[in-house]
Amino acid sequence: MGSTCVRIAVDAMGGDYAPGEVVAGALRAKEELDVEVLLVGDPQEIEASLPANASLNHVEIVPAEDTIFMYEDALIGVRRKPKASINVAMSLVKQGQAEAVVSAGHSGAVMGAALLRLGRLTGIDRPAIGAIFPTMIASKQVLVLDVGANVDCRPKFLEQFAMLGSAYSQYVLGVPKPKVGLLNIGEEDCKGNDAAVRTYQMLKENSHINFVGNAEGRDVLSGDFDVIVCDGFVGNVLLKFAEALGNIVLQILKEELPHGWRGQIGTAVLKPNLKNIKQRIDHAEHGGALLLGVNGICVIGHGSSQAPSIFNAIRMAKEAVDHQVLQRIQSQYQSLQHESG
Amino acid sequence: MGSTCVRIAVDAMGGDYAPGEVVAGALRAKEELDVEVLLVGDPQEIEASLPANASLNHVEIVPAEDTIFMYEDALIGVRRKPKASINVAMSLVKQGQAEAVVSAGHSGAVMGAALLRLGRLTGIDRPAIGAIFPTMIASKQVLVLDVGANVDCRPKFLEQFAMLGSAYSQYVLGVPKPKVGLLNIGEEDCKGNDAAVRTYQMLKENSHINFVGNAEGRDVLSGDFDVIVCDGFVGNVLLKFAEALGNIVLQILKEELPHGWRGQIGTAVLKPNLKNIKQRIDHAEHGGALLLGVNGICVIGHGSSQAPSIFNAIRMAKEAVDHQVLQRIQSQYQSLQHESG
Repeated sequence: MGSTCVRIAVDAMGGDYAPGEVVAGALRAKEELDVEVLLVGDPQEIEASLPANASLNHVEIVPAEDTIFMYEDALIGVRRKPKASINVAMSLVKQGQAEAVVSAGHSGAVMGAALLRLGRLTGIDRPAIGAIFPTMIASKQVLVLDVGANVDCRPKFLEQFAMLGSAYSQYVLGVPKPKVGLLNIGEEDCKGNDAAVRTYQMLKENSHINFVGNAEGRDVLSGDFDVIVCDGFVGNVLLKFAEALGNIVLQILKEELPHGWRGQIGTAVLKPNLKNIKQRIDHAEHGGALLLGVNGICVIGHGSSQAPSIFNAIRMAKEAVDHQVLQRIQSQYQSLQHESG
Repeated sequence: MGSTCVRIAVDAMGGDYAPGEVVAGALRAKEELDVEVLLVGDPQEIEASLPANASLNHVEIVPAEDTIFMYEDALIGVRRKPKASINVAMSLVKQGQAEAVVSAGHSGAVMGAALLRLGRLTGIDRPAIGAIFPTMIASKQVLVLDVGANVDCRPKFLEQFAMLGSAYSQYVLGVPKPKVGLLNIGEEDCKGNDAAVRTYQMLKENSHINFVGNAEGRDVLSGDFDVIVCDGFVGNVLLKFAEALGNIVLQILKEELPHGWRGQIGTAVLKPNLKNIKQRIDHAEHGGALLLGVNGICVIGHGSSQAPSIFNAIRMAKEAVDHQVLQRIQSQYQSLQHESG
């Protein structure tokens, strides 16, 4: 695995800093990772974003005439603009010309285009967006899903998220027996809203996952869980809260670190360490989110992604391809359906 | 206002460190604030927790024979144990012998006891628990409610939370025209789940509050909002996530600050500043949560409260009494009902 060169379709028009930062991140990925990138979007704009020393021969541009903007209704946009960059990128995967899509555009449009062009995996009712959070244990991450695709979730959907997340954690992140938790407001199985109580029972009885119980808000970053399942409303609030934290903590550090001579000595001595602290706290350093449950690898970058985040998102997509996560999830579901059928 | 001595009933048996830390915090409050504390609980245990130099004449103990434990069902506990410390404390308020209750015990039991003994304010269907979060602006706080009393909320309840929170922010925290936000997953009025979309409209049309729109996860700590309204499930997850952060950030700082001579110089120079940083980030420094909508002032401390948190919770209760928040909320509701009736 991982020895062939992965081809990744990058939505060059998606995100607040598109196409400039997207192109920059993609070029870096092409140089540092074993990937080919297909830049999908307006060729003129993309070419204008290329650095002077980039040879056009080495950059593959796939023209797309349209863009879906953040303020548009995602599903309407996806249907009315078949030539939008995100639609064209998904078609490349559908046609076998690319193995994954990366976009920092409208996340609803990414999901809509994926559903429309790639479809869902067998056995999955709703795809989910999974985000990787750092934890207080430097070597551990936690996959939280759903973080925004589904605002209202039936217990059956949450159970599917648990299986998708567990497979991703095991096969891509390399966690041997991922500990799965249900985000809830107490540890006991009777806690939470109606959906949480019913989901708890379903997860407990599912032999394909290692369900270890409810996870409270305080447990998200504890490192005690590898996968945490929640509906897309709570997950999205938590994700955006966590994303803002890096900056907040850094600003507080900046304000509270001493000024004058004491500050100069202290911060000069600590400079390299402050950078490490930022890296561990700052969510943006940890790349994109994964759209799980559709029939293709899709990584959704943050709307405010700059080149480093795009680079990380492309790496994430490559790792998912390398580890054949789709095929593995699909075969797991097939065996599950044999059992129950 | 604030010139008379406020009498506060403190549930000495509530919390992981009860009665020792509760008594210690209460004694400090009695010394430093203009309050009388009534310690409610097992007299022997309370007396054993008093420091050797405390004169029994100066400490008022109100005996209560029972305790509701964290693992108990709150409502059953409240009904079956009329002599539990939290029930006795509420009765003191009901009978006019105290003006507020502070408890770090089972928050469900505090709410149950308050509903049973004090009842709701006119016009309020469900009380809410409001928690005060620090923001990235050192001088600003944000009141988030509900953080756990109601896991499923109808739009009408959320509107009531908005009015309760706005009144508290204005009258107790002294914010002239509190900016109220609805916690949601996007800025636009069409975003979110069904309850959020309907609540948005109701808040927009409510002339008694200064509704400024949806607040996303990233906005909670931005300082752009004074009051943020959400259901108790999301709010509780967020609260516990935020509570854990102080410790996580401090642990990361500890791990990442250099060891050896560089570390010794850096941290020696920065020591006073690290303390400030902890205070700004650590939620525990910011005291308890308020039970809003019941006919009495109740402050709920964190289960793991130690003396400083109990002290802060008592101060919070005193401020709410001093500013006559109950009377003000009630008269606002009465004028609202006149209008709509």
